[in-house]
Amino acid sequence: MLKRVKAFAPATVANVSCGFDIFGLALEHPGDEIVLNLKDEPGIRINRIYGDNGKLPKEADKNTAGIAIMSFMKYLQLELGLEMELHKGLPLSSGLGSSAASAVAALKGLNFLLNEPLSNKELIPFALDAEQAISGTGHADNVAPSLLGGFVIVRSYDPLDVVKLNVLDDLYCVVIHPDIEIMTKIARDILPTQVNLKDAVRQWGNIAGVVAGLLNNDYDLLSRSMNDIIVEPVRAELIPYFYEVKKSALSVGALGCSISGSGPSIFALCKTRTVAEIVGKKMKEIYEERNIKNQLYISGINNKGAIAEQIE
Amino acid sequence: MLKRVKAFAPATVANVSCGFDIFGLALEHPGDEIVLNLKDEPGIRINRIYGDNGKLPKEADKNTAGIAIMSFMKYLQLELGLEMELHKGLPLSSGLGSSAASAVAALKGLNFLLNEPLSNKELIPFALDAEQAISGTGHADNVAPSLLGGFVIVRSYDPLDVVKLNVLDDLYCVVIHPDIEIMTKIARDILPTQVNLKDAVRQWGNIAGVVAGLLNNDYDLLSRSMNDIIVEPVRAELIPYFYEVKKSALSVGALGCSISGSGPSIFALCKTRTVAEIVGKKMKEIYEERNIKNQLYISGINNKGAIAEQIE
Repeated sequence: MLKRVKAFAPATVANVSCGFDIFGLALEHPGDEIVLNLKDEPGIRINRIYGDNGKLPKEADKNTAGIAIMSFMKYLQLELGLEMELHKGLPLSSGLGSSAASAVAALKGLNFLLNEPLSNKELIPFALDAEQAISGTGHADNVAPSLLGGFVIVRSYDPLDVVKLNVLDDLYCVVIHPDIEIMTKIARDILPTQVNLKDAVRQWGNIAGVVAGLLNNDYDLLSRSMNDIIVEPVRAELIPYFYEVKKSALSVGALGCSISGSGPSIFALCKTRTVAEIVGKKMKEIYEERNIKNQLYISGINNKGAIAEQIE
Repeated sequence: MLKRVKAFAPATVANVSCGFDIFGLALEHPGDEIVLNLKDEPGIRINRIYGDNGKLPKEADKNTAGIAIMSFMKYLQLELGLEMELHKGLPLSSGLGSSAASAVAALKGLNFLLNEPLSNKELIPFALDAEQAISGTGHADNVAPSLLGGFVIVRSYDPLDVVKLNVLDDLYCVVIHPDIEIMTKIARDILPTQVNLKDAVRQWGNIAGVVAGLLNNDYDLLSRSMNDIIVEPVRAELIPYFYEVKKSALSVGALGCSISGSGPSIFALCKTRTVAEIVGKKMKEIYEERNIKNQLYISGINNKGAIAEQIE
């Protein structure tokens, strides 16, 4: 049996404009890395967390990585001793699936350590348990793409039914994270509980268009379909200068631009890295000019998802 | 210039379960046929209508075929003399796009007669004008598949944006038309104007699943996705024995079963003709046992759409 593994789980963009709670995609980077050490004495211990500015709990039963591991071990009826080191590569509360990435990295690592008793899809419920425990809602639109990679459709939550679509190499994602905090709970609480049937119909036309655009590599269609008339208009209010950022991204060739997950990160899809770099520069300018701290990421779409490997 | 053409436009299944107002597919048969004769004296005349039991108006400005032709000629700034013969192959008010098929056949015929100045997609608005005039709403989910064939996504109505997906040869559609009448207007009036966001999310998961299932030829996914939780439950009340028919279709292997358009026809998608024939037999039994007159159609999906040819 392996003793020491490390695992990486990528950041994810959930919703991807019109697909609230059902679409998500994985980035190449940033992501979270976890090192797992098998120990003789039972229990889960988080030894160190890097990159969180001391904000995350080290108690395993309060940390998303620890909760996911415990849920997985309970399922396997195992009582292992595990020490963890968590390297946060992605910002907290950024709308990039930070808690999901930690949980996914931990699960991927443990599954690898155990010689892969479960498939990636079978690991999803344990990460959802962790999301549920931390935020009160277990949404698969970050967890599933972080594990599986690619562009993911969460067709159904009950029963869980997740479909992965591979994405072409020339599709790039620009993400800008303005350094302000939006609590996921608030971003959910401001959503309407009811929508007009007419608006729902417009939204599902766009959803169908996004899927057909991706599968037929029809980026014009993808671009025309990246419209969210239900969630984006409400959540945009929580993100300073959202519309300026979006407008500037589209003005230099982004296929589409919207809020990543519940924000505050804003993402844009672009054809080719060259376009993505120009778009990123324009998006960043909006916040720089207004002295708002921000991080910019430019990444291909990660078709592999989370990975694990032996170390030492 | 040609003098005499005939055109055929197929019946269509709109909504295709979860895709209210955005999905439609074309059948190989039944369909409407129109013969157009170019005449010297201007004006549109409908000489004969077969197969409508005398129910359709012969005045060109009241008949969907005539209205569509007039809208097209107005656009072209033409004043032709045309005599038409309409052969109704599909039942009226059946939920199979009867009025759309007549309009589409007329447009396809005239476009052919004029040496195809417009593409099929460009003909859509004239058929919508006719639908609007006849029923008060111009929905493209019958018109577009009848013209283009295949499985059609109406991504957007304003501007009109229609995407055609080709469907594999092994997909068959069973349609049963119980001989009762449901006015499209009533079927629309009973719809809710608002839906729960939660239900909308479930619906768009299924919509994404239908598109991915069709494009990846993943019929299991297509089958799991053919769930309409918003419109079908309301309209099913208007169709006698709907749930019995659906249950019997699914019990013998239909991939999915729902209401065709606004009903009363019920359709089922099946993999292979053999399954479709078994499914059709079971569906028909429900109505036969209850002495309800009905027509059964078993057809492949029509990837060609409307066709026109010269005659004589």
